[in-house]
Amino acid sequence: MAERDQAQHDALVGKTLASMPYARALSMTMDHLGGGQAQMTMPYSEDLIGDPDTGVVHGGAVSALLDTCAGAAVLCHPQVKAATATLNLRIDYMRPATPGQSITAEATCYHVTRSVAFIRATAVDADSDRPVATATGAFTLQQTAMG
Amino acid sequence: MAERDQAQHDALVGKTLASMPYARALSMTMDHLGGGQAQMTMPYSEDLIGDPDTGVVHGGAVSALLDTCAGAAVLCHPQVKAATATLNLRIDYMRPATPGQSITAEATCYHVTRSVAFIRATAVDADSDRPVATATGAFTLQQTAMG
Amino acid sequence: MAERDQAQHDALVGKTLASMPYARALSMTMDHLGGGQAQMTMPYSEDLIGDPDTGVVHGGAVSALLDTCAGAAVLCHPQVKAATATLNLRIDYMRPATPGQSITAEATCYHVTRSVAFIRATAVDADSDRPVATATGAFTLQQTAMG
Amino acid sequence: MAERDQAQHDALVGKTLASMPYARALSMTMDHLGGGQAQMTMPYSEDLIGDPDTGVVHGGAVSALLDTCAGAAVLCHPQVKAATATLNLRIDYMRPATPGQSITAEATCYHVTRSVAFIRATAVDADSDRPVATATGAFTLQQTAMG
Repeated sequence: MAERDQAQHDALVGKTLASMPYARALSMTMDHLGGGQAQMTMPYSEDLIGDPDTGVVHGGAVSALLDTCAGAAVLCHPQVKAATATLNLRIDYMRPATPGQSITAEATCYHVTRSVAFIRATAVDADSDRPVATATGAFTLQQTAMG
Repeated sequence: MAERDQAQHDALVGKTLASMPYARALSMTMDHLGGGQAQMTMPYSEDLIGDPDTGVVHGGAVSALLDTCAGAAVLCHPQVKAATATLNLRIDYMRPATPGQSITAEATCYHVTRSVAFIRATAVDADSDRPVATATGAFTLQQTAMG
Repeated sequence: MAERDQAQHDALVGKTLASMPYARALSMTMDHLGGGQAQMTMPYSEDLIGDPDTGVVHGGAVSALLDTCAGAAVLCHPQVKAATATLNLRIDYMRPATPGQSITAEATCYHVTRSVAFIRATAVDADSDRPVATATGAFTLQQTAMG
Repeated sequence: MAERDQAQHDALVGKTLASMPYARALSMTMDHLGGGQAQMTMPYSEDLIGDPDTGVVHGGAVSALLDTCAGAAVLCHPQVKAATATLNLRIDYMRPATPGQSITAEATCYHVTRSVAFIRATAVDADSDRPVATATGAFTLQQTAMG
């Protein structure tokens, strides 16, 4: 793909993600996308709280951010020309995210075969040196072109 | 724990989960809880859609249901007297859930050590013979008693 | 496949596995194979010891048994007509296997798509009620027919 | 721990690993160890072959190398003063290792809590730009000091 086409492709991916109702419901935004890497942010919200005593965000919301960000990283990998779907994902939780802070995920698609893309991703809050959660996953690549 | 205490404990767990804002935001309900097993249901909602073209629910929402249901299974295991938190979780996605249908998760806490509980869980839609997703996880058991 | 063809296929799979040098080096034997389920046993051996103080078998040997047994379960699933390879595997370790005892793995291939087979497996020693380790995995199905 | 104590600790860890019969049976050697990072190599051997037609090493042997190397990374992490055991491990297989080539694993212990250490690891053959397999894992930290 030429550089310009890649940029258009990436814009398309960004638009596609922005139109995902679940990502919108969690107010996820795309910070960066391209070359098999993506960064997304999800603001703190009371609807995401898992533990009402502490105000800590539910692990499932962090997991949704990591999954979505990983899918974006796959879609913008130069070797990927197809639609993708999560095949499986491992999430490790290091510590509770600090209540009130946004959570940012960074994902890298580090290897692509004919039918599978491999990703790793990390989620942090304002204390970006200490990860909140990490993810490792495999995404299937479907034959159907994305357009 | 006597049977009556166990029932009270389980009721407490159910109440605790019902009070989780994120579980409420996804309208999760507890169908069954006790003896290290839990079943929860999440109704179909437009806010959960991952793919606007097909109306299929986002994997992250299925994952949140599996994670929450697994945590409930841990909390109601007879050997568990402590609070718990997800340490890590593997989710495998078998197929898209059928748009418009509720998703039901069943989780079993199948082994407990001094510091870790092990779970497996399955999510189905109306076609309960063909799983939508499965989960395998480890939960940490904290020393703090739950009351 | 007719019943007889299936039996031939299963015999072939058993033979194939028996000829794997690594499975032979670990003295793995096939106890049962068919219909997407497999059972294999690995005798205790000093070469498998991970901790010389206790004589406990190395987790990597248990993992190799679970991986091999899971691959056998995939190969003998009625819907699988292709070669297979492990895509990814999660192993959870519940407890050390008791030194001196054989380890037996049981694996089930519980779902098959066009390109991926999903498995779960459990390893036990003589105390078969308390698992030593469990596995969850995805195997790729290659287009090349197995014959 | 003072620098000299750390060096002694690391030497001890190296000796401990060298004395593991299973690691010896697979001829694993420690290339580097310290500061929460480890590198180990396993030479090609006919006993490790998983597929006799191609001579490719069995995934279970690669997994054993990754598991052992990850355990070494945990043991030499400055915050870890206890014995450790694998709690769970996810292995992703990217491609078959090239027959005849050694396999080298690098592992990093990237986060430590009171009771759990988190690792990631990668295995390569002579073509070190294209990973053969990656691992993500959680190790339990036992109260028993290691000495």
